[in-house]
Amino acid sequence: MSYTEISGGVTAAQGFLAGSVYCGVKAANTSRPDIALIYSPQATVAAATFTTNKVKAAPVRVSMSHLSCNDVRVIVANAGNANACTGVAGLETAKRMVAAAAKALKVRPRQVMVCSTGRIGVPLPIKKMETAIRKLPAALKSNGSRRAAEAIMTSDTFAKEFAVECEIDGKPVRVGGIAKGAGMIDPNMATMLCFLSTDAAIDKKQLQEAVSAAVEQSFNRITIDGDMSTNDTVIMLANGCAGNKPLRQGAPGLKIFQRALDHVTRNLARLIVEDGEGVTKFVEIHVNGAANMIDARKAAEAVANSTLTKCAWFGGDPNWGRIMDALGYCGAKLREETVDIFYDGLIAVKGGMPSKTPFSKLKKIVAQKKITITIDLHLGSADYTVFTTDLSTEYVKLNMGE
Amino acid sequence: MSYTEISGGVTAAQGFLAGSVYCGVKAANTSRPDIALIYSPQATVAAATFTTNKVKAAPVRVSMSHLSCNDVRVIVANAGNANACTGVAGLETAKRMVAAAAKALKVRPRQVMVCSTGRIGVPLPIKKMETAIRKLPAALKSNGSRRAAEAIMTSDTFAKEFAVECEIDGKPVRVGGIAKGAGMIDPNMATMLCFLSTDAAIDKKQLQEAVSAAVEQSFNRITIDGDMSTNDTVIMLANGCAGNKPLRQGAPGLKIFQRALDHVTRNLARLIVEDGEGVTKFVEIHVNGAANMIDARKAAEAVANSTLTKCAWFGGDPNWGRIMDALGYCGAKLREETVDIFYDGLIAVKGGMPSKTPFSKLKKIVAQKKITITIDLHLGSADYTVFTTDLSTEYVKLNMGE
Repeated sequence: MSYTEISGGVTAAQGFLAGSVYCGVKAANTSRPDIALIYSPQATVAAATFTTNKVKAAPVRVSMSHLSCNDVRVIVANAGNANACTGVAGLETAKRMVAAAAKALKVRPRQVMVCSTGRIGVPLPIKKMETAIRKLPAALKSNGSRRAAEAIMTSDTFAKEFAVECEIDGKPVRVGGIAKGAGMIDPNMATMLCFLSTDAAIDKKQLQEAVSAAVEQSFNRITIDGDMSTNDTVIMLANGCAGNKPLRQGAPGLKIFQRALDHVTRNLARLIVEDGEGVTKFVEIHVNGAANMIDARKAAEAVANSTLTKCAWFGGDPNWGRIMDALGYCGAKLREETVDIFYDGLIAVKGGMPSKTPFSKLKKIVAQKKITITIDLHLGSADYTVFTTDLSTEYVKLNMGE
Repeated sequence: MSYTEISGGVTAAQGFLAGSVYCGVKAANTSRPDIALIYSPQATVAAATFTTNKVKAAPVRVSMSHLSCNDVRVIVANAGNANACTGVAGLETAKRMVAAAAKALKVRPRQVMVCSTGRIGVPLPIKKMETAIRKLPAALKSNGSRRAAEAIMTSDTFAKEFAVECEIDGKPVRVGGIAKGAGMIDPNMATMLCFLSTDAAIDKKQLQEAVSAAVEQSFNRITIDGDMSTNDTVIMLANGCAGNKPLRQGAPGLKIFQRALDHVTRNLARLIVEDGEGVTKFVEIHVNGAANMIDARKAAEAVANSTLTKCAWFGGDPNWGRIMDALGYCGAKLREETVDIFYDGLIAVKGGMPSKTPFSKLKKIVAQKKITITIDLHLGSADYTVFTTDLSTEYVKLNMGE
């Protein structure tokens, strides 16, 4: 292990400040802070990935256009309202959020990234937000990670933070972050946000490659209900405070950095799944032996997103027939007679047919809170892993509206 | 209207007999008939469509190979066991079902089509089935449609029959059928079967084209949970007893025939959706103005299969944000600012943004048992329609296993 887990989340890395204020973006009767801020007094390089949904919220569009800025200093984010499907007026509002944060922290608007999560199709109460954002600099703290993590929660039941320390060029380098999850208790809530920071010195291009790779191995591997949000955003800032030799293409330290970042994003992704709505089980789907990587992914995602497999897991039913069925329609190359399926290493299907494992043993495994299902297609050497959940009656209740 | 609805289901057409016997294929404690037979004493031409799932049940494989037979006489089908994921032994068993039916009715095995629906991965109790199939000829009746329809039910709550009469060359021609639905109360049940008959004289090639077109407009347009079964089968037999001039390519009667057949399959498809598990609402999704037909279909299916839209419908929540979200990730060409969405003709979204329609009016519509959602993308002239349902807590309970 070339890194150790530490506390501190998005402010674990040197030089980053975070904080939150209460504004009341959401109509609901709560005094929970709902605007979060992350700030770097030092110059940074930024990287980000955004939702590929063609319906993109206004803040996503604004942040995408600011990503080319060479010195992003601020991330401002609100919960309670997604500022999505709000048209030209919504874009204007997102820009006013940016302007307010830029003014409060004396930076240029292009140095501000903006995110929103919450209700779709409702105008932001921008006037009171501008007033609240003015108070944000006073709320910034070098240990403010948790408060920022709490402020971006919607239906999340706990704040999500993670950080590690590794060593590059003999210098301690820290990577950490906060995230909010795929909770959708309120109508139209459906967003995953993650803000990452590091004190590593790293080139912008290398940072973007590292973030894209980390997201691919983590947030792109989790699925609760197969619905992709209009607001999903991952942003990472690197300020170089660790004093390592800047990580350029080919630098040996890049591998260490990537491993540390992967560990942070994978753990944040896992926390999101574990806190998914109405979730009673955490399910890892490993597909091995696929003809190619695209097929491996198709197979894993079809099994993870099948309403029927998810209902069976909820009921503790080792229903491998539904897994075979999903494999059959997923579009991946498949030979029924070479498929093996394992529950926590115990064989359930051998060559496309029931194994000799007693049903009672499989039932015991599926009764657990954590299940690992391994599918070997025996057609090649490509593999893929997805982290998912069951589908509970509680999930339906949480998402059926008022 | 060039046809009238009549009673009689799959035995509405002249010359077809149907019946059922009790065998006890399923372990459960019931005396409900569970093997159905459809028989034509006259020569027929046959057409069929089968599941495109790569995991195909043994009876599907056998029936596919018998489809080239020029004179199919028998359809034998059992409920309670899908004979899927049963390997070489399963194929053998399906052939024994065929042999038993062929012997009982004195036809060649290739003249028999075979179907199974029910549990996956469990061997058929073929010995007692052979005994039961021997009794089938005595059970055949010219009004036996309902008994056959009842025998193929699994978690269906009612038998599904439909028939029409039209006129071709001045002769009354009848088209009818029975179906079983997408019910999955028992673990691993997930099959749609439909058996159709007509007394029209028609060429085999024309019959296949008509059946394929009818299936495309009906069974391929319905979705309850997006899971495609290993056993889905539609079979049609035509015996020519109506005495019309045989329908060859270009015959004017073909259009009349197609319209009649479409009406039968659409109504059977609708009955399947209405009887879906735990269904409280029937939802029609119309997508208009798509750039092309593939996009229209992607958009309609993404909205119909979104767990979140379905939960909202269950709760009577006019949650158009989730529809916008699904449109955004479905892969179809989309301009957010040109999307209009209507609930029963009342505009909810205008140009990608909330319309002025009061929320209370939309709520009243979504509270209904039948909802029509029309989405206009304003990008072209392609359209597509899908029939679907809500996702209820009852659905989850029915599918969570024992």
